Amino acid sequence: MTELQQQCELLRSLHRPGNPLLLPNAWDAATARAVVAAGYPVVATTSGGVAASLGYEDHEGAPGDEMLAAAARIVRAVDVPVSVDAEGGYRMEPAEIVEALLAVGAAGCNLEDTDHRDGGLRDPGVHAEWLIAIREAAAARDYPLVINARIDVFIAPFMAGAGPEAYAELVPEATGRAKAYFDAGVDCVYPIGPWESDGLAAFVSEVQGPVNITCWPQGQSPAELASLGVARVSWATFLHVDAMTRFEAQLSTLQD
Amino acid sequence: MTELQQQCELLRSLHRPGNPLLLPNAWDAATARAVVAAGYPVVATTSGGVAASLGYEDHEGAPGDEMLAAAARIVRAVDVPVSVDAEGGYRMEPAEIVEALLAVGAAGCNLEDTDHRDGGLRDPGVHAEWLIAIREAAAARDYPLVINARIDVFIAPFMAGAGPEAYAELVPEATGRAKAYFDAGVDCVYPIGPWESDGLAAFVSEVQGPVNITCWPQGQSPAELASLGVARVSWATFLHVDAMTRFEAQLSTLQD
Repeated sequence: MTELQQQCELLRSLHRPGNPLLLPNAWDAATARAVVAAGYPVVATTSGGVAASLGYEDHEGAPGDEMLAAAARIVRAVDVPVSVDAEGGYRMEPAEIVEALLAVGAAGCNLEDTDHRDGGLRDPGVHAEWLIAIREAAAARDYPLVINARIDVFIAPFMAGAGPEAYAELVPEATGRAKAYFDAGVDCVYPIGPWESDGLAAFVSEVQGPVNITCWPQGQSPAELASLGVARVSWATFLHVDAMTRFEAQLSTLQD
Repeated sequence: MTELQQQCELLRSLHRPGNPLLLPNAWDAATARAVVAAGYPVVATTSGGVAASLGYEDHEGAPGDEMLAAAARIVRAVDVPVSVDAEGGYRMEPAEIVEALLAVGAAGCNLEDTDHRDGGLRDPGVHAEWLIAIREAAAARDYPLVINARIDVFIAPFMAGAGPEAYAELVPEATGRAKAYFDAGVDCVYPIGPWESDGLAAFVSEVQGPVNITCWPQGQSPAELASLGVARVSWATFLHVDAMTRFEAQLSTLQD
């Protein structure tokens, strides 16, 4: 096996329901190295942090080539597997995104079912077909890419200010998408948004595969998420937001 | 005048002895935008922070083209003049570094007299000739680049743990270099290192031109530096170090 193939398999093996892979998301080489220095076995990127560091908005506000170049710098800076938040795939064809991730040296990727052309959700069947094509393109290159399929059904109500109790009715939609994406060959699903613990435990049980959940500042702790059967916990943009908040606070006191 | 020429002249005009330009150094587009949002009229980069964010050591550990590409992203992200820490000029010829800074859109630059081939100091006369050639190359392009000439005589003793009282004997060397660099046409000199207030006031008085001083965590405040006649105050890598310290502290508590 090549080193990248080994990294893919290591990353895949760390998705353990109940003993989750913890991913404090990084956005540049310095933060990636800090994650490794703190003992984490994998680095995952945050598209929000990477885009901001490049001067763009999240949600494919940045050109894909600039996002992937930033990811390549992170891969170059560390020796551990790197999972790249590749947003919606930057409108690339499946073979194209696979070649790009292979060139970056990504052991894994996040791919989300938001359609960034209009901000809506992709049809789950169409998205599953796209994921199948990505898995097939990766297999054709002997590239055991770890695919984390983000499920974005809760984003719109969350951004509108609703809490998880208000969008429990969307859980069946998320569950259906999770099953379709697992059938398409993904390694993990990532229904982003805050969850009620009972609903999350039921979702994890029903989808029967590794689940990635965001560790929200006011939400369940990593230990609580582990107890609910979660296999992967990530911090999304929160650490980048925290670092920027700190930087802004420092700016406000420099002249004191 | 072009917009860049106007930015150069604005940046130059803000070098006011006793009423210094304050530069909380940024290292990416997000921090640059935060500096502007906090009301600062200019963004200056820190080579240490930029290099770390790209995965390299400071002191020309990074390839010049990657450092300049990062600077270009910062220029693209803000509407204010940007002064680029261009270290020792990345071993480019004078015309080449001028073209590179022009392509970046830099209103100003730092250029230091460390010879990164061996880490020692360049001969001051040779360095002054190089600065003259840079000024001439810029003039030939109608490019009123603001040149901040860093003077590195205090770095070696500082890195060896000595305080400013221990290297007061080097002040005449710094003064001689400052005068030579002003004669070469630079806009500001930057004798980096902590200073005793009396020695700094004497230096500022003797060199008779704008002086940039680092605001050290344990050193004089910006107001104190202003009272000593300083024209430009920068924070070097300190804000990047602070942000990374914050990030590392967050990493250490994520599982609590």
